[in-house]
Amino acid sequence: MRHTISVLVENKFGVLTRIAGLFSGRGYNIDTLNVAPTQDPNTSRMTIVTRGDDAALEQIVKQLNKLVDVLRVQDFRDGEYVDRELVLVKVSVDSMSRAEVMQVTDIFRAKIVDVQPKSLTIEVTGDEGKVEKFIELMSTFGIADLTRTGKVAMPRK
Amino acid sequence: MRHTISVLVENKFGVLTRIAGLFSGRGYNIDTLNVAPTQDPNTSRMTIVTRGDDAALEQIVKQLNKLVDVLRVQDFRDGEYVDRELVLVKVSVDSMSRAEVMQVTDIFRAKIVDVQPKSLTIEVTGDEGKVEKFIELMSTFGIADLTRTGKVAMPRK
Repeated sequence: MRHTISVLVENKFGVLTRIAGLFSGRGYNIDTLNVAPTQDPNTSRMTIVTRGDDAALEQIVKQLNKLVDVLRVQDFRDGEYVDRELVLVKVSVDSMSRAEVMQVTDIFRAKIVDVQPKSLTIEVTGDEGKVEKFIELMSTFGIADLTRTGKVAMPRK
Repeated sequence: MRHTISVLVENKFGVLTRIAGLFSGRGYNIDTLNVAPTQDPNTSRMTIVTRGDDAALEQIVKQLNKLVDVLRVQDFRDGEYVDRELVLVKVSVDSMSRAEVMQVTDIFRAKIVDVQPKSLTIEVTGDEGKVEKFIELMSTFGIADLTRTGKVAMPRK
C-alpha cells in the first residue's frame, strides 16, 4: 500500500538525517521525499511517499511523533488532499519530431522551458496520474534526462 | 554562498540517510532537498540546495563521489542550468479579497487548484525569484498553509 505522509518539523540541523534514518532503520523504502521551509522560516515541511504494510507504517508514524523536532505528522492515506508534482523532462527531438512533442506539451498544458538543437526541456506539473502519462508519452520520443520533485500534498480543509 | 547540487544515485535502501548524514555530519545545513526516481527506476536523482563556504562543500562533493551508490554529482554553482520549484499556498480570502488574490494568481500564471469558503489553494511554479515574489505578495492576504518541493535543476546542454 502507498502512503503520503506530511511531517512538519523544526528547521534544525540533522532533522532530515534522523527522519530518513527512522524509515531506513525499519526497512521501509522511501519512494520520493522533499523538504523545504514553510511560510515560517523556523519550520520545514517534508512530504514522504512510501510503500509498505500499514502496521509497520503506523509504528513509524508513532516514532515520528516522539521526535522532539517533529511538530505534526499527517498521514494522507484517507483524507481529502490536493497533491502536485513538478517534473523537468529533457526530450530528444529532431526536425521531424519537434512539432509532435510540442503538440503533446500543449495538450498537457506543460511548458517548454529550454530549447536546444536536439532537445526540448519541458516542465510538467500535476497529480501523479497526469505526470506519469506525460512521461510515458515522451518516452516514445526518447527521454535524455528527467528530474522530479516528488509529490507535495496539502489538506483541502 | 548558495549551492545547488544534483546527485544521481542507485535507487537503494538507505542511500538518502547516508547522504543526509554526510551533510549533517559536517555541520552543513540543507535548505531544501528532494529525491525521486528518474526515467530509469533503478536510479534516483536528489537535488540539494545548501549554503556555506566553498571549501567545505568541495569536501562534501568529494565524499559524495566516494559513496558506492552515488553515480554522478553535479555542482550547479557555475554551470548553465534550468531550475524550477513548485509551491502550494493556501491563502485566506473573504468576499472582498478573493478577486484580488485571483488577479495576482493570473499575473503569475499560477493555478487555483482548490477553493474553500475561506481559502484558495494556489499552485505556482517557476524559478526561485518568481516563487518568492508570489509568496511575498500572498503573505499580505494571509498564508494559512504552504508546502514547497524545493528546487529541481537540469543542465541545459
